Amino acid sequence: MSKPAPSTYPINEVIAHRWSPRAFLDKPVEKEKILSFLEAARWAASSYGVQPWSYIIATKDDPENFAKLVSVLVPFNQSWAANAPVLLLSLAQTVNAEGKPNSHALHDTGAASAQLSIQAAALGLQAHQMSGFDAAEAKKVFALPEGVEAVAAIAVGYAGDPETLPDFLKERELAERGRKPLSEFVFTGKYGEVSPLVV
Amino acid sequence: MSKPAPSTYPINEVIAHRWSPRAFLDKPVEKEKILSFLEAARWAASSYGVQPWSYIIATKDDPENFAKLVSVLVPFNQSWAANAPVLLLSLAQTVNAEGKPNSHALHDTGAASAQLSIQAAALGLQAHQMSGFDAAEAKKVFALPEGVEAVAAIAVGYAGDPETLPDFLKERELAERGRKPLSEFVFTGKYGEVSPLVV
Repeated sequence: MSKPAPSTYPINEVIAHRWSPRAFLDKPVEKEKILSFLEAARWAASSYGVQPWSYIIATKDDPENFAKLVSVLVPFNQSWAANAPVLLLSLAQTVNAEGKPNSHALHDTGAASAQLSIQAAALGLQAHQMSGFDAAEAKKVFALPEGVEAVAAIAVGYAGDPETLPDFLKERELAERGRKPLSEFVFTGKYGEVSPLVV
Repeated sequence: MSKPAPSTYPINEVIAHRWSPRAFLDKPVEKEKILSFLEAARWAASSYGVQPWSYIIATKDDPENFAKLVSVLVPFNQSWAANAPVLLLSLAQTVNAEGKPNSHALHDTGAASAQLSIQAAALGLQAHQMSGFDAAEAKKVFALPEGVEAVAAIAVGYAGDPETLPDFLKERELAERGRKPLSEFVFTGKYGEVSPLVV
């Protein structure tokens, strides 16, 4: 199952092939591929180079730690993400060691997870990020210290057969991908003024 | 000038080649390349698919709008970024039309700008993001509506000759790239417990 972006302008193949499936093959992810997608996250850019992201990870063949990650998902996400071979939770250090807030911590964690997802796609995997999880519960379950917040859950694996999903999810899995056109979010001079570069 | 990440585990070449230079060639960026890196941002993942990011963009051959972007940078960033052929400001819609906060808006904007940066690298360009700008001033200059916040300034162009930079910046431009090892930010079971997958 592959679902490349129907892009208006040419984009790199790996970026185009990144998408967020809910059906995953019942196939473990090779350790070297896990290391590669984590390594890609590592090399993201960050404000003042502080690298505010971290990850909790577990594979399905580590049932105890995998179950802890499943436990913090909302029931809807549990229904499909528990079938992925790898689960992660991204974390952001939003307050540094001196008690100073880092207003770019969430932004930079988003960049790291985007690089993780693109590297996953480059390896034939896909990563599906979820905001649907209990952040307060995650804070307890994973003993997150002060100043570290749970940001997003991530399911990673090989995209599987949409037929394995319940009907309403199968429909979404097979639906065409879409995005706002550039003219709705690229401005010049002031907000809302469509850039001449995109018309 | 190229500065690939000295990665511990193999990563996609385009991700490895993305870095944040301060020296740019005095060479405009082709319009089709601008469209491609904006298109790559467009296809980022977002919570509930709301695509909370937008961009203000200007090229150097549009002096009035380019100067507006330069004007919101802190003086240190003005000193080098004003030489880039393209400047952008990423924006996040942190409050939706119904007045509901989107706690993932910054995160997802970070993902979009990461895709923008990787696509830039794929085209032989580089994007350098900056948190050093005046967000309150940007809000006025670009007439950002309630609920839309300026997130990061971005300089884009062809990486240039480090010799064109003042000495202290030349040193940084030529310094080796580095990141925390995976063992410092990839955990299993609880925060701080190094994952067996990365040792």
